[in-house]
Amino acid sequence: EREIRLFSLNSNRPLAEEIAKEIGIPLSDCQVKRFSDGELYINIEESVRGDDVYIIQSTSSPVNETLMELLVMIDALKRASVRTINVVMPYYGYARQDRKARSREPITAKLVADLLTVAGATRLITMDLHAAQIQGFFNIPVDQLLGVPLISTYFETDEFKAKDIVVVSPDHGGVTRARKLAERLKAPIAIIDKRRPEANVAEVMNIVGSVEGKTAILIDDIIDTAGTITLAADAIVQAGAKEVYASCTHPVLSGPAMERIDNSSIKELVVLNTIDLEGRECSSKIKQMSVARLLGEAIMRVHEHKSVSTLFD
Amino acid sequence: EREIRLFSLNSNRPLAEEIAKEIGIPLSDCQVKRFSDGELYINIEESVRGDDVYIIQSTSSPVNETLMELLVMIDALKRASVRTINVVMPYYGYARQDRKARSREPITAKLVADLLTVAGATRLITMDLHAAQIQGFFNIPVDQLLGVPLISTYFETDEFKAKDIVVVSPDHGGVTRARKLAERLKAPIAIIDKRRPEANVAEVMNIVGSVEGKTAILIDDIIDTAGTITLAADAIVQAGAKEVYASCTHPVLSGPAMERIDNSSIKELVVLNTIDLEGRECSSKIKQMSVARLLGEAIMRVHEHKSVSTLFD
Ligand SMILES: Nc1ncnc2c1ncn2[C@@H]1O[C@H](COP(=O)(O)O)[C@@H](O)[C@H]1O
Ligand SMILES: Nc1ncnc2c1ncn2[C@@H]1O[C@H](COP(=O)(O)O)[C@@H](O)[C@H]1O
Repeated sequence: EREIRLFSLNSNRPLAEEIAKEIGIPLSDCQVKRFSDGELYINIEESVRGDDVYIIQSTSSPVNETLMELLVMIDALKRASVRTINVVMPYYGYARQDRKARSREPITAKLVADLLTVAGATRLITMDLHAAQIQGFFNIPVDQLLGVPLISTYFETDEFKAKDIVVVSPDHGGVTRARKLAERLKAPIAIIDKRRPEANVAEVMNIVGSVEGKTAILIDDIIDTAGTITLAADAIVQAGAKEVYASCTHPVLSGPAMERIDNSSIKELVVLNTIDLEGRECSSKIKQMSVARLLGEAIMRVHEHKSVSTLFD
Repeated sequence: EREIRLFSLNSNRPLAEEIAKEIGIPLSDCQVKRFSDGELYINIEESVRGDDVYIIQSTSSPVNETLMELLVMIDALKRASVRTINVVMPYYGYARQDRKARSREPITAKLVADLLTVAGATRLITMDLHAAQIQGFFNIPVDQLLGVPLISTYFETDEFKAKDIVVVSPDHGGVTRARKLAERLKAPIAIIDKRRPEANVAEVMNIVGSVEGKTAILIDDIIDTAGTITLAADAIVQAGAKEVYASCTHPVLSGPAMERIDNSSIKELVVLNTIDLEGRECSSKIKQMSVARLLGEAIMRVHEHKSVSTLFD
């Protein structure tokens, strides 16, 4: 019998504990500490020889710390003779640096793929990569789960069924995602079309599609400083929408995000817990849903060699 | 003609500027910034196509930040079609995690070697690796320079020539280094032999060799919390030495180091500038010597395909 083992590092321990509960096995013990000079030290406290190991770690802020923690852990597991090293990374940091937008830029999302692989990862399970192309940066199997099915359930209540809904993508890159949500909610879509009419002039937000008199639901993969999403919400209200909800998979929420959300016309912001928000001062508009069941199910399916894609796509 | 280019990242800019002055060419421009969520962004501001690039970066504290900065920079250079990527790393972080001292530990020094290589480094120029074996962790050329010849010059003055000197290694691992310094100073050596007579009893410091009435010079590769070196100094004084100097290549000096040095029987501590101490509250006992000429010369020799080993060994 192949033994399954779950480890949690420090970026999102509450989620890891929930996942362990879903699967019905405890988290295994590992010691993660720092030497006086800040160097990481990891020791795995129990034998893992021949086991299938799942490490739960989002590379969220502080990204360089959470990433190195993960790499050092993979190295330790590899040397402890495990059978497979499955990285469960609900949030994949550096995903937005996925192409050269200017000359002489790095492609850090690819660098991260190479770092994980050279350290010894044998599989990646992740959620909503900023670009699906990032899967192709790996030569190991990648399972990408989507947040839309889970986010959708929030809006599949009788309360929302009584409303006249339109799903809105805040930019062109997110149209596929918005369409997926719209299909589930049997609603039309609209798209925000940001244009800068001339150089050195503020951007204008045009809305392609009708939002007038409707309940708009904005959806994005990442909400970081919340600039895009709050401006989009304001534009939608200006265009005559009755109310605006927003949603995303990854609540990065850095810098002025909380304040912007509080002061915006967004009524509620539905986010997943791929990134830990415990201990942060959160806007009361934020409703967080858990991906623990989704990831627990994915881990069990991977472990039993069953298809993951059919489940969540 | 092959163009040579020097870049500095953020861990030790004063040293990089000195090296550039020694070589007589300016540091090239690159923009290193952080996005709102803490992710690093790097852009190289000038064309580097076909060039031989030297990146000066110690992976000193905060080690995970300085290491990622270096990896992202290597990635950007690789994609900018440079000819060679030579990493000049005066201080190699994580060097002490160079073997499994317990079961299920990582070997982070090897992980770092793999990360640098997969990112695209083609050569490493470094100083006093904690263990020379770390060179074997790489499949790219590694030039290791030694601090002893430079440290030695500090003690080759008439003042010290008039003294009765003994060079002391603070542990068994450092005997080779102590012997190299002793040969240059034409002095005998002594070794501190730390032993724990029984479990749960304090360590006892025996001194192998004679220090009585002499001027002792302790030498180590790294001084971190300064626990070992200050205890060694006290033991040497107890054993009848007239005075104690200490020296090392890499002044990590974390946690209680400065206070310990101040309160110890060490008269002066000679360190190199592989790690930047600017902006830190330093003990007045610390004398810092610069490796800029050494590294500048090494860079020029590498660039001209001349031997480096003959110069500094
Ligand atoms: N952490 C980050 N925060 C903000 N912008 C980023 C971040 N990482 C990458 N970018 C930039 O975001 C752009 C890609 O975003 P997008 O067009 O939405 O795919 C690129 O120009 C990147 O340089
Ligand atoms: N940054 C660090 N600070 C203190 N000890 C460390 C550090 N990195 C590794 N070590 C430990 O130091 C020991 C190796 O030191 P040494 O015997 O001097 O080669 C190993 O047991 C390591 O776990």
